[in-house]
Amino acid sequence: MPVTLNTQDADFESRFVRMLSAKREDSADVNEAVAGIIADMRAGGDEVLCRLTARFDRLELTPDGLRFSPDEIAAHVARVTDDERAALSLAAERIRAYHSRQMPEDASWTDPDGATLGWRWTPVSAAGLYVPGGQAAYPSSVLMNAIPARVAGVERLVICVPTPDGVVNPLVLLAAELAGVDEIYRIGGAQAIAALAYGTQTIAPVDKITGPGNAYVAAAKRQVFGRVGIDMIAGPSEVLIIAEGAQNPDWLALDLLAQAEHDADAQSILITTDPALAEAVAAAVERLLPGLARAEVAGASWRDYGTVIIARDLDEAAALSNRVAPEHLELCVDDPEALAAKCVHAGAIFMGAHTPEAVGDYVSGPNHVLPTARSARFSSGLSVLDFLKRTTLARLSPGALAAIGPAAVRLAQSEGLQAHGASVEARLAQLNVRRGE
Amino acid sequence: MPVTLNTQDADFESRFVRMLSAKREDSADVNEAVAGIIADMRAGGDEVLCRLTARFDRLELTPDGLRFSPDEIAAHVARVTDDERAALSLAAERIRAYHSRQMPEDASWTDPDGATLGWRWTPVSAAGLYVPGGQAAYPSSVLMNAIPARVAGVERLVICVPTPDGVVNPLVLLAAELAGVDEIYRIGGAQAIAALAYGTQTIAPVDKITGPGNAYVAAAKRQVFGRVGIDMIAGPSEVLIIAEGAQNPDWLALDLLAQAEHDADAQSILITTDPALAEAVAAAVERLLPGLARAEVAGASWRDYGTVIIARDLDEAAALSNRVAPEHLELCVDDPEALAAKCVHAGAIFMGAHTPEAVGDYVSGPNHVLPTARSARFSSGLSVLDFLKRTTLARLSPGALAAIGPAAVRLAQSEGLQAHGASVEARLAQLNVRRGE
Repeated sequence: MPVTLNTQDADFESRFVRMLSAKREDSADVNEAVAGIIADMRAGGDEVLCRLTARFDRLELTPDGLRFSPDEIAAHVARVTDDERAALSLAAERIRAYHSRQMPEDASWTDPDGATLGWRWTPVSAAGLYVPGGQAAYPSSVLMNAIPARVAGVERLVICVPTPDGVVNPLVLLAAELAGVDEIYRIGGAQAIAALAYGTQTIAPVDKITGPGNAYVAAAKRQVFGRVGIDMIAGPSEVLIIAEGAQNPDWLALDLLAQAEHDADAQSILITTDPALAEAVAAAVERLLPGLARAEVAGASWRDYGTVIIARDLDEAAALSNRVAPEHLELCVDDPEALAAKCVHAGAIFMGAHTPEAVGDYVSGPNHVLPTARSARFSSGLSVLDFLKRTTLARLSPGALAAIGPAAVRLAQSEGLQAHGASVEARLAQLNVRRGE
Repeated sequence: MPVTLNTQDADFESRFVRMLSAKREDSADVNEAVAGIIADMRAGGDEVLCRLTARFDRLELTPDGLRFSPDEIAAHVARVTDDERAALSLAAERIRAYHSRQMPEDASWTDPDGATLGWRWTPVSAAGLYVPGGQAAYPSSVLMNAIPARVAGVERLVICVPTPDGVVNPLVLLAAELAGVDEIYRIGGAQAIAALAYGTQTIAPVDKITGPGNAYVAAAKRQVFGRVGIDMIAGPSEVLIIAEGAQNPDWLALDLLAQAEHDADAQSILITTDPALAEAVAAAVERLLPGLARAEVAGASWRDYGTVIIARDLDEAAALSNRVAPEHLELCVDDPEALAAKCVHAGAIFMGAHTPEAVGDYVSGPNHVLPTARSARFSSGLSVLDFLKRTTLARLSPGALAAIGPAAVRLAQSEGLQAHGASVEARLAQLNVRRGE
């Protein structure tokens, strides 16, 4: 049984804080190892990349074998069954439809002083998408990373996906094809991130790196941040379910387990106002857990981080959820829209009994790359905006400069930046001369 | 005289690449020192903060003196002259007007399958704004950081500004007042960033930290990234001017010097199709430089990083500018809009002879916190979006789940995530039962 907390218990606050601050991932030594890999990669490029791939993925490659050839891709993709292809195509279509609505608009206006102001969005030129392999290779991650980039208008799209022992998931390659990826490299870990950020003899560098990964990938992304853009530092995943009323305990248990089966560090939290429902769900978890192929992982997650909280009412539940700022928030209550309005920190909200989080992982349309480990307090899931940047625009008429320039001169003087002031004054002087003519 | 390159020279490409990759800042040892400061701050809180402030800012404080009191603020602000107040108020008003247009819209729609999808923007709860002190305290930075946060709806706004030797810039405090800042602390450096990220006994932690700073501040922001959100890693500043036609060489020289006077690591670049204009501007720089109060800083920047490039035509100039991806781009040409359309990587574009970059630092309206050191390839200036996050929303009708759920089940099976599939299947089974009734 997981921890069960009741908000009416005297020690609730301290136990809740302990849960919030539980460190679900240990990155000791990772930073240093990653710094070494990045330095080696910058010095050695392809040669180091092949050596590290042999070491970590047990895969011997030469530089010209790093990239999947069109023939290899075709051969692998041919192994995909028709129904898998149909499912992936439906997912791609729905993800594209959702993300197409995210394209922001440019703006331009002229204010009463005669200053024409605005901004313009443009895509990054080249993006690199990391796709985790290892335990499970995720074709859905390819779609979730590549489609927003394509919608944004990124010219060159690169994927890195490790293929440990040479095992290739053909669905990953099909997903790349459906999303319109240009280059696919069979590399992973910190060495792949270094290759994307700094380039090698055969891999041109990119401007932005996105996608989740393990602790090494996360540390590498943090270290190359600034040289290139990154989306976020992905940590262990979590779901929080708020439930009340006539809910099917098995459905909720499976939703909790779906999160738990990702990773032993994942966290599943149920908050309910109904102690009987809490008990029924916890019992269903215990009953369903042993039947899972990934029972060991899910069991460890549930045992170590699973939490059930009995709240007084839905307002209290929403307040607790806001403190957790969950990556995934499921609202299985009678009026999920009303409750959603109160849940202001969450990566993605799933409303109602027929919106299990798992549909969001694949086919509902919104992105499944979401802020983890409480970072929904300040960040958002992956979107088209991650592959765009905004340039601000300004053009002052002589009249506008005459109107607002003197204030700039004054402030430049206050800040001790003489040339700043002089650059405006020189223009104002000419305008005054003209006016005096 | 700075480096002068001509795109027609045989060695142009190699010299341009050398300029692009010149390391304008050295952060050796900074990371380790900063990691030590953050660890000390986490362990010691206020006591460490006071000790480090005494050491770095030569300012002895007790914990209850870290924060400016309302009376202190009022006393300092009373020293501001009327014309300074008017200038700062005009700047605040124009910055607020520009940023108010950046508020993004929520969205919600129901697709043909019966899935109601959308997203919602919400503000971060608490933001900490770093305002550099030291060489020059910048009231304009307070406005540029705090106003977008207030426009976004951030509840709690905190400023950290170092006051070395206890010297306070009353304009910084007035700017904070105009922008509606809630708490102001007289602390700086990595210790201020640590205080904002982790909190101390007297300072509550924030969710997002923005604002430029020196190498220690930048390193600290990088290290706390993930625990809190950050805007960007600010590096040395740069301006690139593309000029052609009848331009006043003194104006362009002053714009180059305005950048150079910021910092010895700043970079000023002029690209022109007209060798005579290049010579005239370079001569004007030499003539005007000695008269500047900050001649030493500006002279070092111009000598070490100043660059003049003679390009064949404006298309070539735009292509070179895109490779630089400058923080500030000034287009002093006959048709700046046409040229701006070709310049796709830049933090901010200033168009025409009457839009010197310096007006953008203060009063034109767009933000002056911009991507430096080539990061305009992948990032944007500070905006209201930096203080918002987006939650995606989904609600599936039973019919929508019946339509798209099977594809999710298929993909979950392919990814080996059994509970994911089962959570959807359990619901589909009930729908099928109902349908069969």
